[in-house]
Amino acid sequence: MIVDCAHYRDGRRQHEGRMDPREAAKICKNDPGFVWLGMADPSPEELEDVQNIFGLHELAVEDAQSFHLRPKVETYEGGVTFVVLRTARYVDEREEVEFGEVAMFVGPGFIISVRQGITDLHGARLRLESRPQLLEEGPASVLWAIVDKIVDDYAPVVEGLETDIEEVEHMVFSGAVAPVHRIYLLRREVTDFYRAVHPLLGPAQAITHGGVLSIGPGLRQYFRDVDDHLKLVNEEIMAQRDLLSTILQANMAVIGAEQNEVVRKISAWFGIITVPTFIASIYGMNFTHMPELSWKIGYPLALAVMFVLAAALYGMFKRVRWL
Amino acid sequence: MIVDCAHYRDGRRQHEGRMDPREAAKICKNDPGFVWLGMADPSPEELEDVQNIFGLHELAVEDAQSFHLRPKVETYEGGVTFVVLRTARYVDEREEVEFGEVAMFVGPGFIISVRQGITDLHGARLRLESRPQLLEEGPASVLWAIVDKIVDDYAPVVEGLETDIEEVEHMVFSGAVAPVHRIYLLRREVTDFYRAVHPLLGPAQAITHGGVLSIGPGLRQYFRDVDDHLKLVNEEIMAQRDLLSTILQANMAVIGAEQNEVVRKISAWFGIITVPTFIASIYGMNFTHMPELSWKIGYPLALAVMFVLAAALYGMFKRVRWL
Amino acid sequence: MIVDCAHYRDGRRQHEGRMDPREAAKICKNDPGFVWLGMADPSPEELEDVQNIFGLHELAVEDAQSFHLRPKVETYEGGVTFVVLRTARYVDEREEVEFGEVAMFVGPGFIISVRQGITDLHGARLRLESRPQLLEEGPASVLWAIVDKIVDDYAPVVEGLETDIEEVEHMVFSGAVAPVHRIYLLRREVTDFYRAVHPLLGPAQAITHGGVLSIGPGLRQYFRDVDDHLKLVNEEIMAQRDLLSTILQANMAVIGAEQNEVVRKISAWFGIITVPTFIASIYGMNFTHMPELSWKIGYPLALAVMFVLAAALYGMFKRVRWL
Amino acid sequence: MIVDCAHYRDGRRQHEGRMDPREAAKICKNDPGFVWLGMADPSPEELEDVQNIFGLHELAVEDAQSFHLRPKVETYEGGVTFVVLRTARYVDEREEVEFGEVAMFVGPGFIISVRQGITDLHGARLRLESRPQLLEEGPASVLWAIVDKIVDDYAPVVEGLETDIEEVEHMVFSGAVAPVHRIYLLRREVTDFYRAVHPLLGPAQAITHGGVLSIGPGLRQYFRDVDDHLKLVNEEIMAQRDLLSTILQANMAVIGAEQNEVVRKISAWFGIITVPTFIASIYGMNFTHMPELSWKIGYPLALAVMFVLAAALYGMFKRVRWL
Amino acid sequence: MIVDCAHYRDGRRQHEGRMDPREAAKICKNDPGFVWLGMADPSPEELEDVQNIFGLHELAVEDAQSFHLRPKVETYEGGVTFVVLRTARYVDEREEVEFGEVAMFVGPGFIISVRQGITDLHGARLRLESRPQLLEEGPASVLWAIVDKIVDDYAPVVEGLETDIEEVEHMVFSGAVAPVHRIYLLRREVTDFYRAVHPLLGPAQAITHGGVLSIGPGLRQYFRDVDDHLKLVNEEIMAQRDLLSTILQANMAVIGAEQNEVVRKISAWFGIITVPTFIASIYGMNFTHMPELSWKIGYPLALAVMFVLAAALYGMFKRVRWL
Repeated sequence: MIVDCAHYRDGRRQHEGRMDPREAAKICKNDPGFVWLGMADPSPEELEDVQNIFGLHELAVEDAQSFHLRPKVETYEGGVTFVVLRTARYVDEREEVEFGEVAMFVGPGFIISVRQGITDLHGARLRLESRPQLLEEGPASVLWAIVDKIVDDYAPVVEGLETDIEEVEHMVFSGAVAPVHRIYLLRREVTDFYRAVHPLLGPAQAITHGGVLSIGPGLRQYFRDVDDHLKLVNEEIMAQRDLLSTILQANMAVIGAEQNEVVRKISAWFGIITVPTFIASIYGMNFTHMPELSWKIGYPLALAVMFVLAAALYGMFKRVRWL
Repeated sequence: MIVDCAHYRDGRRQHEGRMDPREAAKICKNDPGFVWLGMADPSPEELEDVQNIFGLHELAVEDAQSFHLRPKVETYEGGVTFVVLRTARYVDEREEVEFGEVAMFVGPGFIISVRQGITDLHGARLRLESRPQLLEEGPASVLWAIVDKIVDDYAPVVEGLETDIEEVEHMVFSGAVAPVHRIYLLRREVTDFYRAVHPLLGPAQAITHGGVLSIGPGLRQYFRDVDDHLKLVNEEIMAQRDLLSTILQANMAVIGAEQNEVVRKISAWFGIITVPTFIASIYGMNFTHMPELSWKIGYPLALAVMFVLAAALYGMFKRVRWL
Repeated sequence: MIVDCAHYRDGRRQHEGRMDPREAAKICKNDPGFVWLGMADPSPEELEDVQNIFGLHELAVEDAQSFHLRPKVETYEGGVTFVVLRTARYVDEREEVEFGEVAMFVGPGFIISVRQGITDLHGARLRLESRPQLLEEGPASVLWAIVDKIVDDYAPVVEGLETDIEEVEHMVFSGAVAPVHRIYLLRREVTDFYRAVHPLLGPAQAITHGGVLSIGPGLRQYFRDVDDHLKLVNEEIMAQRDLLSTILQANMAVIGAEQNEVVRKISAWFGIITVPTFIASIYGMNFTHMPELSWKIGYPLALAVMFVLAAALYGMFKRVRWL
Repeated sequence: MIVDCAHYRDGRRQHEGRMDPREAAKICKNDPGFVWLGMADPSPEELEDVQNIFGLHELAVEDAQSFHLRPKVETYEGGVTFVVLRTARYVDEREEVEFGEVAMFVGPGFIISVRQGITDLHGARLRLESRPQLLEEGPASVLWAIVDKIVDDYAPVVEGLETDIEEVEHMVFSGAVAPVHRIYLLRREVTDFYRAVHPLLGPAQAITHGGVLSIGPGLRQYFRDVDDHLKLVNEEIMAQRDLLSTILQANMAVIGAEQNEVVRKISAWFGIITVPTFIASIYGMNFTHMPELSWKIGYPLALAVMFVLAAALYGMFKRVRWL
Repeated sequence: MIVDCAHYRDGRRQHEGRMDPREAAKICKNDPGFVWLGMADPSPEELEDVQNIFGLHELAVEDAQSFHLRPKVETYEGGVTFVVLRTARYVDEREEVEFGEVAMFVGPGFIISVRQGITDLHGARLRLESRPQLLEEGPASVLWAIVDKIVDDYAPVVEGLETDIEEVEHMVFSGAVAPVHRIYLLRREVTDFYRAVHPLLGPAQAITHGGVLSIGPGLRQYFRDVDDHLKLVNEEIMAQRDLLSTILQANMAVIGAEQNEVVRKISAWFGIITVPTFIASIYGMNFTHMPELSWKIGYPLALAVMFVLAAALYGMFKRVRWL
C-alpha cells in the first residue's frame, strides 16, 4: 500500500494529498527538491511497479520484501543507497520484543520508505515537516527523520526490559520462587533485540562520518545525535545481557543456599522428634526387671524427659540457627 | 566423476551434452567465453588428469581431494583462484549437521568445481543459465552461483537447529526430564557448523570488495547479497551458541529448584508419618501406671490424636507450599 | 542557576563577583583571555538564554539538559567542542554509586560548564586559579581542571566498592551466610560505574593526542596524566567485575561444600540414634522365649549395649570427620 | 650432538656423510647453494662452537638452548632469522601432550636446526631431498620442510585429544561416573597445546606474506599451505577448549539430575517401609481396649494391610517415576 | 635515599663511590657518556632536589612518588622519557604476590631510577657494568638492564603461583577438602599480577620497535628479548587465570559428585538398619493370636531373618556400588 507520496522543495511540501508515483518520478528527475514515497506492507506488484518507475535494483527490492533481515546500509549503482532498519516494540503482557522492518531507497531526488510490521513513521513525517531547514537538505533529511524515530522507539523497549529485569531480581532475592524460565525468556528477548540493534552501529557511524551519503554539516550533527543514542541503547542492552546472566547464576546460588537452610531446618525437626521416640522405644522393651516401669511417677517422668530433651534440642538448633 | 563440462559464451551454453575436458581446455585458451567443468567425488586419477590439462597447482589439487578443510580463498600463480567451501545439511532424525565440500578453481576462461559428499550444485547451474546477463560476466558468475546456493542451503540448517533448540527449551522448562545430553550434542553441532561458516566471512568480504577476483559492479551486488546472507547465518549461529550455553545453565537451575521442591515434599510427608508414629511409640511403653491405657476410649482417642496431628501437619505444609 | 561567570586573562581572574553572561559573551569575542561560565542544574530557560548568547548548537544544549547520557566528546560547527562527563560518588550506607553529570561547551574564548546532580566543581576552580601558567593556556585548561577533578573523584568510588567487596569476601568464606543478594547488587553497581567510565577512554585519549582540541604541549602532559588515571580506574573496575563474578561462583562452591558437611553431620547423628533405637525395638518384641528379658541384668545390659554402640559410632564418625 | 651437516646445491646434496661445520661455514660464504647443519640436544659447548663459526647472535643462541619458550620468529643483524617452534606428541597412556622444541637459524647460505626433546626431523630432510625444485630455493625451503613436518605432527595430537574427549563425553552421559579430574586434565593439556600453537599464527602469516624472509612465489604457496594447516589446528584446539568447558558444565548438570533421581528413589523406598512400620507401631500400643488385638484374623490382617499399603505406595511411586 | 650516582663513559664507570647529584647534572650536560642516579624510597624533599637539578616534569615526579600505578612509558618535553614498572615477588608462606615500583627518568645524558618497596636493582647494575659494549649505548642500556631484571624476577612469581595451583589441584581431586577460599585468593593474586604485567606489553613493544627511545640495533635485540619474556609471562598468567576458573568449576563438580556418593552411602546404611527395625516392630505388635511369638525358635529366627535381610541389602548396595 502506498501511504503517501509528496514533493518537497525549499523545505516545504508542495501539495496536499498523495501524488501519483509515476508523476513523482518525473518530477524528481527534472525539478529541484525531492520526492518522498512511503509504502506500508506493499504487495509484490506494488513494489515491482515502484522498482520499474524509479529504476531500483532487483536485489534491494527483494530485500525490501523479505523479513528477518540484518540492519544494513548498501550503495547500489546509480547512487541509490539502500537502508534496512529493524523497528522494535515491547509488548509487556507477553514480555516480548516485537520487531518490524523499514527499508529505504535514498536516491538522487527521491526517497522511498517501505515499512513492514509494527512501525509508525507518521510521527517522523510530521516532525520533519516542522523543520524546513532540515528538509531543505534533501532526501537524507528524511532518512534522518526515520532513523531518529526508530532509534527513539528503542528506548521504551530498553525500559520495558529493565522493568522486567527488576521484577525478576525481586523474585530471585525474595526467595518466593525461582523464575528460571522467565530469566531465560528475557535473556532470549534481549539477545534478539541486541541482534536488531548491534549490526546498525557500523553503518550508523559510517553515515555520520559521511562515508555513505553526502550529508551537509548541519544534518551531520543530527545523524551524530542518532548515532549517539544508538550507542547508548547498545550499551544498555549489553549491560542487560550481562545482568541476566548474573541473575541466572545468582538464582542458582540462592537455590543452593535455600536448600542448605531447608535441609538444616528439616534435620532439626527430625532430631527433635527422633530423640523422644528413642526414649519411648526404651520403655517399650519387655525386660522383666525394669524398675522405672513400676514407678508411679514413671510415665509422667518419661514424658517429662522426652519434653525436656525435645526442648533442649529445639533451643540448641535455635542457637546454631538451624531453626 | 566428471558431472558436466560446458562452454559458455555471450551468456549462453554453446552446446548440449558434456564436452571433453581436453577440448574444453583448448577452447578456454583460444575462444571467448569460458568453460565450466563440474566434478563430483573425483578419483585421484581424474583430478590428476584435470590438473595436467588446466595446469593447476599441486597443493590446490591436494586440498581439493582431502576432506575436513577450512573454507578458504587462495590465489595461485597464473591467476588461478582456489576456493574451498563447506556445504551443510541438517539431518533431523539424528539431530546432526552433515558437511560436504566444494572446491573451485577459477582461472582465466575456466572454472572447475569439485564437490565432495552431500552437495547438489545442479540447482546452481540451472539458476545461473536462466540469467544470461550474469553468465556474461565470466567464470566469477559461476563462483557466485555456487556460493549463493551453498549459503542459501545454510538457512534450513539454522532452522533445523532452531527447532531442536525450541524442543530442548520446552523439555527443560516443562521439568519432564533434564535433556543435558541433547543440549550438549546440539551445542557440539552448532560449534561444528560455526567452524564451517565463520572462516568464510573474511574471504567473502574480500571477494565482495573485489580484493581477490576482478568482478564487474553488476556481479558485485550479487556477491554482496551472499556476503550479507552469510553474516546473517553467522550471527544466528552465534546467538544459538549463546542460547545453548544459557539453556545448560538454566537446566542446572531448574534441577536445583526441583530438588528443593522434592526435598520439601518428601520431608513434609515424612513429618506427617513420623509424628503419629511417635504417639504410637508412647503408648507402646510398658509403664504399669499409664491411666490412658485402661480407658475405654483410649485407643480410638489415640488414633484420633494421630489423625488430627497428621492433618494439622498436612495443612501447615500446604500453607507453606511444601506440599 | 548560574554559579559563577568570570573573565580570565594572562592566567588571572580579571574581577571579583559574577559577571553578566551577555557582557561575558561580548568580552570573549573582542578581548584576549577567556570567559568561564558555570551553571548548576539550570532551568531550560536559563540554558536557552545562554544558548542564544553564545550561539550554541541546539542538539548539544538538549544533551546538556538531559540525564543518563554516555560520556562523550563532540565537535560542532564554529569550533565549539561539547563534552559530557559522568561524575560519581559512593554512598556507603546504601552501597550505591550515585551519578551526576557535567556538560561543557569549549569554544573560542569561552567555556561553559553545566553540572547536574551531585558534583562539586568549586575545588576545580580554586585549584586551577592557583596555577596561572595553566590558566594562560585558555579554555582547555578549565576543561582539564574539571575532568581532572571528576576523574580524581572516581578513586573514592573504587575504594568504596573495594571495601564492600572485601566485606563480602569475608562473609562468603566465614560461612556465616550466603550474601548472594549483596554480591549481585555490588556487581550491578560496578557495571553501572563501568558504563560511566569506560566510554570516556576513547575521547580522553583523543584529547590527549590533540585530536579534538588544540592543546599546547604543556597542558597536554596534564591531560595525559588524567588519561592515565582514567585507565587505572577502568582497569580497577574491570578487575572488580571479574572478582565479583568469581565470588559468586566461589559462594556457590562454598554452599555446596557446606551442604556436604551438613548432610554428613546430620547423617552421623541419625546413625547414632537409630542403632540404639533398633536395639530397643528388638527387646520390644513379644516373643515368649526371649531369655534376656528375664535376666536381672538384661535391662542395664541393653542400655549399656546401646551406649557402647552409640559411642563407637560417634568415634567412627569423628575419625572419618563427619562430626 | 651434530646430527648431520650437508651442502646442497642445485637442489641436490653435494656429498654423502657429515661435513665438518667449519668447512661448511667456509663453503656457505663462498660457494653457491647452502649448508644445512642439524643438531639435537646440543651441549652448550657445541652450540658455542657453532655460534662462533657462523657468527650467530648471543641472545638467539641462549634461546636455542633453553626450553619452554614461546614459538617466535625474529630477525637479527646480518640477515639471520631465528625461528623457534614447539613440537608436540600425544602420549595416549598418560593422556598428555609432550612438547619438544626446534630452533632454527636461517642465514644467507646456511640453515642451522637445533632440536630438543621429542622431535624427529629426519622425515623432513628426506621429504625435502626428494623435491629438488624446492631445495633450489635455498635455506627457506629447509625452514618450510621443518615447519611443515612439525605442523603435520600436530594433527595426531588433535586426534588423540579428540578421542579422549569422546571417551569423556561417553562417561559423562552414561552416568557411570563423574570424570571431573580427567576433564580437568584434558582441559589443561589442551590449554598447553594451545599455548604452543597459537603464538605461531602471527609469525607463520608474516612468513607467508614475505614479511620476514625473502621467499620466492613457488615456495610461498607451500608456506601458505602450512599456514592453513596451522589455522585449522588452532581452530580445532579452540573448539576443544570450548567443548571441554561445556562438558564440565554438562557433567555438573548430569550430577544434579542424578542426585534428583537418587533422592526420589531413596525417598520412595523409605516411604514404602515407613508406612508399614507405622501400622506395626499402632498395634504395638498397650491399650487394654483394642478389639483388633483379640481378633483371630488380626495379625494376618495387619500384615495384609501393611503389604497392601506398601504395594500401593510402590505403584504410586512407579507411576510418578520416582522408582 | 640516594643509593648510587655514577658517571659512565665508553662503557665504563668513571669513578668509585657516589658522586654528588649536582655535579652529576653538570657532567651529563657537558661531558660525553651519561650519569646514572639511583634512589630508593626517596623522601619528597630528595625527589624535589633531583627534580630541580635535572629539570624533571612536575607530573612525572608526582608519579614517581606515588604507589599503585599502572606500568607506563611517557615522553615529556625536553626528551625525557618517564617509565614506571611494577616489580613483583612471591611470598610463599602468605601465598601473596608483593609488589614494588621502579620509576625511571631517561634523559639526554642521564638516567634516574627511583625504586619503591621490594626491589633489588643492584644485580642489574652489576650485570650491566660487566657488559661495556652495552653500556656504551648510553642511558637506554640502563633502562634495559633494569627492565630485564624486573621481568626476570617475574618468573619465580609465575612458578610460585604454579606450585600453589598444583597443590590446589591435588586438594580438589583427592577430595580431602574443598579449597574454595584458597582457589579464590590465588585467583585474586593472579589477577593483581596480571594487572602489573599486562599494561606493560604495549610500551615494551613500542620501545622494542624504537617508537619511544632512539635505541641502536644492538641494544634493540636485548629489548626484544625482554619483550619476549614479558609476552611469555603474560601468556602464563592468562593460562593460570583460566586454570583457576576451571578448578573452581571442577571443585563444584567434585563437591556435587561427592554429595551424590555420600547420599547413596548414607541411604544404603539407613536401609540396612530400617528393614530389621521394621521386622522387630512387627513382633512388637500385641495381637493375641501371633503363633510365631510362642514358638521356641521364634526369637532366634526373627534375629536370623533380620540378619539375613540386612546382609542381603548390604550385598545389593555393594553390587550397585552405593557402598
